Amino acid sequence: MILFLSCTLFASGQSKSIQERLGYPKDAKLLILHADDIGVSHSENMASVSAMEKGCISSGSIMVPCPWFPEIAAYVQKHPEYDFGLHITLTSEWKYYKWGPVTPAYEIPGLVNKNGFLYSTVDSVKQSATAAEVEKETRNQVKRAIQFGINPTHLDAHMFTALNRLDFMKAYLKVGHEFKIPVFLYRHLESELNFKFDSLVSDKDVIVDTIVTVLPENFKTGVHDFYISSLRNLKPGLTYYIIHTAFDDEEMKAVTIGFTDWGSAWRQEEYNFFSSSECAKLLKENNIYVITWKEIRDKITRR
Amino acid sequence: MILFLSCTLFASGQSKSIQERLGYPKDAKLLILHADDIGVSHSENMASVSAMEKGCISSGSIMVPCPWFPEIAAYVQKHPEYDFGLHITLTSEWKYYKWGPVTPAYEIPGLVNKNGFLYSTVDSVKQSATAAEVEKETRNQVKRAIQFGINPTHLDAHMFTALNRLDFMKAYLKVGHEFKIPVFLYRHLESELNFKFDSLVSDKDVIVDTIVTVLPENFKTGVHDFYISSLRNLKPGLTYYIIHTAFDDEEMKAVTIGFTDWGSAWRQEEYNFFSSSECAKLLKENNIYVITWKEIRDKITRR
Repeated sequence: MILFLSCTLFASGQSKSIQERLGYPKDAKLLILHADDIGVSHSENMASVSAMEKGCISSGSIMVPCPWFPEIAAYVQKHPEYDFGLHITLTSEWKYYKWGPVTPAYEIPGLVNKNGFLYSTVDSVKQSATAAEVEKETRNQVKRAIQFGINPTHLDAHMFTALNRLDFMKAYLKVGHEFKIPVFLYRHLESELNFKFDSLVSDKDVIVDTIVTVLPENFKTGVHDFYISSLRNLKPGLTYYIIHTAFDDEEMKAVTIGFTDWGSAWRQEEYNFFSSSECAKLLKENNIYVITWKEIRDKITRR
Repeated sequence: MILFLSCTLFASGQSKSIQERLGYPKDAKLLILHADDIGVSHSENMASVSAMEKGCISSGSIMVPCPWFPEIAAYVQKHPEYDFGLHITLTSEWKYYKWGPVTPAYEIPGLVNKNGFLYSTVDSVKQSATAAEVEKETRNQVKRAIQFGINPTHLDAHMFTALNRLDFMKAYLKVGHEFKIPVFLYRHLESELNFKFDSLVSDKDVIVDTIVTVLPENFKTGVHDFYISSLRNLKPGLTYYIIHTAFDDEEMKAVTIGFTDWGSAWRQEEYNFFSSSECAKLLKENNIYVITWKEIRDKITRR
């Protein structure tokens, strides 16, 4: 699941444009096709791997505390050529299918509900967790991923929870800096959390200015039309698509039961669109450079 | 997954026969049709609930530490008419789909591997855990089940792990006694673990003398023929079928990947046989009384 920020996006916060920093033509349209929620279920894993292998997504992020994490970790270990980061997970939002944190609950009590699971909602985390707990759990998710043979290309924030309070965001950014892994940040955070990035980031960070993702109203009128229009109107700079790829099968229907939005049918539609020849054709016709977080990590964060 | 004990089974260990203790004719053929591993996956939950609702199984046991435990717990809470106990789980045996204990790992280090999961094999648990750790984790699984609204009808032991060392068995039995929940025990344990039940059990316990379950060689020649023969040759006393019901779907194939035995096709075959009209007909024709653990709990353990 995701939050939404309107408009097209591009990276900034530094003196050079993102195109210059990555070595592309200055008016290049750069696009990261990013699949969230990998590891949450077998269905999400299989659809995302299929999309990655077909080149329909260029990057994805993995939920380390989830039950199917070992499956995707084994895949990533065998396929270092693909771009996988970590979807820092501080919530367990589904109704009947739950997980706890990586850190022992007694060390991070503010992140854990009475059943030993991560909280269902971002608001609960916001109300009860401390930044020290967020930092510890984020660090332990990175450490566990490395222990499982993953070399993460980036960190991002499941349901934007780690970006929901300024002190949470600083903790998450601190862990990224510690491991020299780029973290997903966006320009709107400044107004949302009432701060300025200038003192927090350096020229080794990348700040996305806008994000493209399907919202419930777009889902009703069609994922297909939404993305066609978006691809045709892509602006120069870095655009960041937040996609969720899974199959509309029994497992995923059961995982997302009771949720009308970001359900299994939605995820299947996103998989279908990005796997289509129409999508590939649009990317080509519109001169879009599809890039990865690995490129950002190796050319900017670790240069 | 299960271990195997040959022959037909019946309960003993007390001065009266199990038929007398439960109020059946003295030569009655009693049968518990028991589904293990409920909670391990959505597939296992759905098949087991379907089998329970159709009357194809009379009892089942739930794996509390597993990711799909909340789904079955919600069902059991709404359906107290069905017979659900707890499949005390001290292992996490599958390749890419894992779970940890209910107890914080630092309190039971001997039950947890370097990745924070329960060990994959019974041998690892046998070698590294203490009885105090088994007792604590068993108790916490019972407590969590109660917290989730389950009134457990019995305890049994996933992969027979809690029955693999005499001190483990005593710990598991102790927790059963503490909560007045009957625990699954079998007569052969005396020779396996070199002890006598007499000093450990009272007339509020039930000891099964033999167990019927499909083994890999029976699976090769057919689940169907194996159970037809078994039902036709059932002896008076208490017979205990250990069954695993799940669907042979993508999720269950992925859970059991790399395992030739007790895989998803096997589980589907067991579901198919016990859901068949042929099975129902055989139970009737052979004058078999299908009973539950709830009956044992309420007439014997809590009388």
